[in-house]
Amino acid sequence: MSDKTTIGVGMVGYAFMGRVHSQAWRSVGAFFDLPLAPRMAVLSGRSKERTEAAAAQLGWDAVETDWRELVRRDDVQIVDICTPGDSHAEIAVAALAAGKHVICEKPLANTVAEAEAMVRAAAAAPPGVKSMVAFNYRRVPAIALARRYVEEGRLGEIRHVRAQYLQDWIVDPEFPLVWRLQKDKAGAGALGDIGSHIVDAAEFITGQHVVGVSGLTETFIKQRPLAGESAGLGAARAESTGEVTVDDAALFIGRMSGGALASFEATRFATGRKNAMRIEINGQLGSLAFDFEAMNELWLCQGGGGFERILVTEPDHPYAGAWWPPGHGLGYEHTFTHEIKDFLEAVATGADPVPSFADGLRVQRVLEAVERSAADGGRYTNVED
Amino acid sequence: MSDKTTIGVGMVGYAFMGRVHSQAWRSVGAFFDLPLAPRMAVLSGRSKERTEAAAAQLGWDAVETDWRELVRRDDVQIVDICTPGDSHAEIAVAALAAGKHVICEKPLANTVAEAEAMVRAAAAAPPGVKSMVAFNYRRVPAIALARRYVEEGRLGEIRHVRAQYLQDWIVDPEFPLVWRLQKDKAGAGALGDIGSHIVDAAEFITGQHVVGVSGLTETFIKQRPLAGESAGLGAARAESTGEVTVDDAALFIGRMSGGALASFEATRFATGRKNAMRIEINGQLGSLAFDFEAMNELWLCQGGGGFERILVTEPDHPYAGAWWPPGHGLGYEHTFTHEIKDFLEAVATGADPVPSFADGLRVQRVLEAVERSAADGGRYTNVED
Amino acid sequence: MSDKTTIGVGMVGYAFMGRVHSQAWRSVGAFFDLPLAPRMAVLSGRSKERTEAAAAQLGWDAVETDWRELVRRDDVQIVDICTPGDSHAEIAVAALAAGKHVICEKPLANTVAEAEAMVRAAAAAPPGVKSMVAFNYRRVPAIALARRYVEEGRLGEIRHVRAQYLQDWIVDPEFPLVWRLQKDKAGAGALGDIGSHIVDAAEFITGQHVVGVSGLTETFIKQRPLAGESAGLGAARAESTGEVTVDDAALFIGRMSGGALASFEATRFATGRKNAMRIEINGQLGSLAFDFEAMNELWLCQGGGGFERILVTEPDHPYAGAWWPPGHGLGYEHTFTHEIKDFLEAVATGADPVPSFADGLRVQRVLEAVERSAADGGRYTNVED
Amino acid sequence: MSDKTTIGVGMVGYAFMGRVHSQAWRSVGAFFDLPLAPRMAVLSGRSKERTEAAAAQLGWDAVETDWRELVRRDDVQIVDICTPGDSHAEIAVAALAAGKHVICEKPLANTVAEAEAMVRAAAAAPPGVKSMVAFNYRRVPAIALARRYVEEGRLGEIRHVRAQYLQDWIVDPEFPLVWRLQKDKAGAGALGDIGSHIVDAAEFITGQHVVGVSGLTETFIKQRPLAGESAGLGAARAESTGEVTVDDAALFIGRMSGGALASFEATRFATGRKNAMRIEINGQLGSLAFDFEAMNELWLCQGGGGFERILVTEPDHPYAGAWWPPGHGLGYEHTFTHEIKDFLEAVATGADPVPSFADGLRVQRVLEAVERSAADGGRYTNVED
Repeated sequence: MSDKTTIGVGMVGYAFMGRVHSQAWRSVGAFFDLPLAPRMAVLSGRSKERTEAAAAQLGWDAVETDWRELVRRDDVQIVDICTPGDSHAEIAVAALAAGKHVICEKPLANTVAEAEAMVRAAAAAPPGVKSMVAFNYRRVPAIALARRYVEEGRLGEIRHVRAQYLQDWIVDPEFPLVWRLQKDKAGAGALGDIGSHIVDAAEFITGQHVVGVSGLTETFIKQRPLAGESAGLGAARAESTGEVTVDDAALFIGRMSGGALASFEATRFATGRKNAMRIEINGQLGSLAFDFEAMNELWLCQGGGGFERILVTEPDHPYAGAWWPPGHGLGYEHTFTHEIKDFLEAVATGADPVPSFADGLRVQRVLEAVERSAADGGRYTNVED
Repeated sequence: MSDKTTIGVGMVGYAFMGRVHSQAWRSVGAFFDLPLAPRMAVLSGRSKERTEAAAAQLGWDAVETDWRELVRRDDVQIVDICTPGDSHAEIAVAALAAGKHVICEKPLANTVAEAEAMVRAAAAAPPGVKSMVAFNYRRVPAIALARRYVEEGRLGEIRHVRAQYLQDWIVDPEFPLVWRLQKDKAGAGALGDIGSHIVDAAEFITGQHVVGVSGLTETFIKQRPLAGESAGLGAARAESTGEVTVDDAALFIGRMSGGALASFEATRFATGRKNAMRIEINGQLGSLAFDFEAMNELWLCQGGGGFERILVTEPDHPYAGAWWPPGHGLGYEHTFTHEIKDFLEAVATGADPVPSFADGLRVQRVLEAVERSAADGGRYTNVED
Repeated sequence: MSDKTTIGVGMVGYAFMGRVHSQAWRSVGAFFDLPLAPRMAVLSGRSKERTEAAAAQLGWDAVETDWRELVRRDDVQIVDICTPGDSHAEIAVAALAAGKHVICEKPLANTVAEAEAMVRAAAAAPPGVKSMVAFNYRRVPAIALARRYVEEGRLGEIRHVRAQYLQDWIVDPEFPLVWRLQKDKAGAGALGDIGSHIVDAAEFITGQHVVGVSGLTETFIKQRPLAGESAGLGAARAESTGEVTVDDAALFIGRMSGGALASFEATRFATGRKNAMRIEINGQLGSLAFDFEAMNELWLCQGGGGFERILVTEPDHPYAGAWWPPGHGLGYEHTFTHEIKDFLEAVATGADPVPSFADGLRVQRVLEAVERSAADGGRYTNVED
Repeated sequence: MSDKTTIGVGMVGYAFMGRVHSQAWRSVGAFFDLPLAPRMAVLSGRSKERTEAAAAQLGWDAVETDWRELVRRDDVQIVDICTPGDSHAEIAVAALAAGKHVICEKPLANTVAEAEAMVRAAAAAPPGVKSMVAFNYRRVPAIALARRYVEEGRLGEIRHVRAQYLQDWIVDPEFPLVWRLQKDKAGAGALGDIGSHIVDAAEFITGQHVVGVSGLTETFIKQRPLAGESAGLGAARAESTGEVTVDDAALFIGRMSGGALASFEATRFATGRKNAMRIEINGQLGSLAFDFEAMNELWLCQGGGGFERILVTEPDHPYAGAWWPPGHGLGYEHTFTHEIKDFLEAVATGADPVPSFADGLRVQRVLEAVERSAADGGRYTNVED
């Protein structure tokens, strides 16, 4: 019934990220007055049967079993990459070369080299072709509000960044050796998966870059049961474990480009912390604090007083006005809806969406510096430009 | 692509409640494995132009400008009533008589008499025709979990219920005389609009009924500017106000059927409280506390210890398993998605959905007892059976 | 080593209140620059042996076994009454008649008649003889700061007072029938013991009086084991219980003299709440919230924002400057030290200490109105002037 | 009136630490049933007039202007050292040689060499002469309870320690160059003053030692106005500043002897954090969290659930039973009362009080390793045994 220009979307992958991206594509037009109406055109996955079932459930019009076909289709103008990190570069480079806009899940790639190739592909894409890496936490209204406050100078010169991403889903030593615990597939462990989010958030909120780090990583449980193998038989048991090849936890301290000190911790062993993506910023004039486990709240300190709990649901707060009245909170999925809204606006207006692939590459370089430092006895290591 | 049986939905009204119900109809099938696939068939509203715009934005296939036409349509099996309370009874009675399932926004009606008519209509509907009143807070996962804990006996005998619904949107005396502040349109003020929610939640969680109350109501600001009138001209100013004919705040204390004491407060004058729907239950063995402003958290006290903050996002928590991993919170809208999921299951299986119209009537009778008590010098007033 | 004028203190009673008052008399001079140096002269109690042991432990120079002797002594200028409520009136009246300053524990008396006699005695005392009722919560720095904020007009016109005093120490039905559960000794139950505190705090912070109430009281456990009796023998067990003659919980709603609505709840059955003396005030311009379980924090909302957590330990906060650097909190006992500091200053300067006996009487009248209302079906009952 | 053996105390210094120690000596006997009754015999300070005024206010019987005289006095059996760190070693060594028990404020000394001398002196002292370093945070009831829980195995194997000590008292660049900001007097900045507390607390709670660290320190404001100089005159202004020679903030990450990773941060630039001494411990079976700004609360997570807020005021909690009923919190000063109670018990029974001088030395070695690491580009640096 709308006469808006539609734009076709093709999504690669339909697991966790695919489900939440689908909800965003499905919902965004009902809440934001967009210049373009996204059409959920094609979903691709390797198994035809499972991809068809996912498309039916998630609301995609067609399926492909090869992402190359999806990239080629005329009814696809946007390629949304929701696969594990090891395939990001290949898909993104192909899609950009084909003149498709690309939104790619984080981390941008599993290696700095891949990320660099993606940045080059983005630069080489035809004019008007846009690309973006999906650090969704930037679109938590509270984090976007934090960014606004820093930009307005409310905190003055920034002295400290204190960021943690705490989870506990592999505390149990019997938890199996899923692909996320294998370096060849996942690239890194907690460092890449959740450490990347807090590095990006710290840079986004402060407007500064991480310039150097001292790092420490650990794998607490070095052998885990192989997933999917039969278990429980005595003799077979010893054979049924494999090596964990990524970090369980990563700690690093460092310096920001504007002179702030920063402390980061990413771990999957913080028992009782389910998704505690926490960040505190201290400036000369004020401070901010946030914890994703209470994602609708931002704590602001100013003028020598205490911390004020701001419920980030007011009409003038970022993104919040599009939704419900004050006090009616949003959830995890809305951060993706906001991201896609911003991406569609950039595509329509010709603006460059952020975070760009270059932003994603910079995060990758921070993570790489952490790994190098950890491998080199914690030595302070500069992040490459 | 799905071969599920579809069921047509017609929604009446597209304002605040219509927007959130639309999001629920649109999303429910992507997260819950339902026996029926809802089709967003028809939206009705009085203005053709505005209804068409709403339908385009919210994703409804067709429009009607008379709800009677919507009720009559063959492609509508479910009527979803999202209008103000003064039209609930007429629409619901007609829809039920026409053999349509009805889900109706709360409060069930503006008067006990209307609510009684609706209960009679529900009873007289053809076999298999279902009806439900949409007290969505029952489907906050934390509140559903609270109910489960009470049912399991974790709190023992209940001694206290302490419920508040605190908002602040009309604190400013210059806020205009919108329809919600006029008795002929809204039925009641804070008492009906938000007091109804905490009465229902208290009854739902405890499994007890409110049996008697002493009440007190107040209208702090008795005259307000008329909405939409030109203002600011000296002489005209005196004429441009009207009388507020509903309560700004209602307090009542009472007794529950199981022996607990209860305290309720509903107000739109609690500065700084945006949507603080709060409830605390104290039992002989334990306690529970909840505040909607932190809707993903339930506080549980047991065995003589302190209060434990439960993040209600675990796979075995009510509704939560259908969404995201632990620690990735839900928002306001999800309560409606859960409600519609339960309603669709009831329609498909023939179960009676709750809260029923009879449950809605009982809430209405509690509110009426509060009004009678307040008018009678606070005298303890029994709630009619 | 000091040449300050000393003033002799005689304290009656050495149980819970006597212990905390002793700590205040012992400490006050080390932190506040007082015009008078208190000397802990005499302690009285009925048992010579136990009183001597208490005096040795708590630091009193001499003992008496009859409070009348204490009142008569020349080395006593201040009488500090720490006995149960049934002896307050007799001791206070005698002390005032003897020209001694009196500080008396709350509630002022067990009955309105006794309290009235005490007010008359205070008025009839020789010039310069001072009296005060020890509602210590007024001297929590956070509550004194709340009073300051209201006085400064930061909240504007007050709309709501929401006060609760929640404890759980008699939840267990096997808890014995101590004197506090017997009306002839304690006067009232939760209503008098802790309800009195929240009524006084509400009046103190707002500067308004409670003018009328609708009340509800309950005794959940009507028979309890007699304290001190042998138990556990089958036949004897039935004989070994006695009747609880006071309320376990009291709820009341009412109106303040300035137009605010007020809600009060005092209970000993709020499982998990140990000493949750909580008060929230909503005004047209702002709000305040406090919970004694986090006694160093005051929450302030102003200007349309959220609630700011003020750590009430800054040098310019009431009483706080005398103690430690910011962020180094105080405890329960300090409220008594502050109270005694203010009392000594009033004695030295000739000012009238507050809360006065008249203030204590007014609280008593509110409690009596609650009891009359509860006995009269919750009817709204005016508080006597 | 008591026939307990008294023991004479001589205290050196009467500033912040002297005031709080005095309150502890004055109060301890009224709350704990001690084997020895402390007598506040002598206070020493350099200025006779000011020491006499302090003694009068704080309750000491006599004064000395040379601590050597205090150490020599027969009425002094315990020497309590409350001076800045640069004099700790000399006083402690002399007192121990004279056969006096010593309780010494933290950090034990300004250098590792001085701390080693003190440990040798403690070992060489006559039999039965006791020594203790006053890390008072060990005697926060919540921290002592945390230690108990870890000892009981409730957390299982420890994976993470996350400790911060955040203050903000020198955020203002106009704050003057007090002695605490000069290395020759204070030894170190935030690292020594408050970093020492969190290192000791982490070791105490976990029962593990810090074995190696990577550190980073910073002085944000390098020049500050000289304290006490006249200011405000144009030309004079440039001359009236001096160099800050200690750290403003120190961050370090490292490893504990039991395999845990640890993160520490000590700063005086965390705007809005007044005395946020925070520690979180994650173990395989559970977690603990604490923040001194809410010192009566300990958060415990166990068995896969959320965090429980324990109000550490129950009779069976460490130290708490000596004070008030549940829910009636303690303050900062009580940690010193507990410390002195434990010290007196050790002196009376012949037990070795903890933390010992050797414990204090170990903390000093951790701080020195941090400084070495920071000076060596963050290299991971082993803590000397």
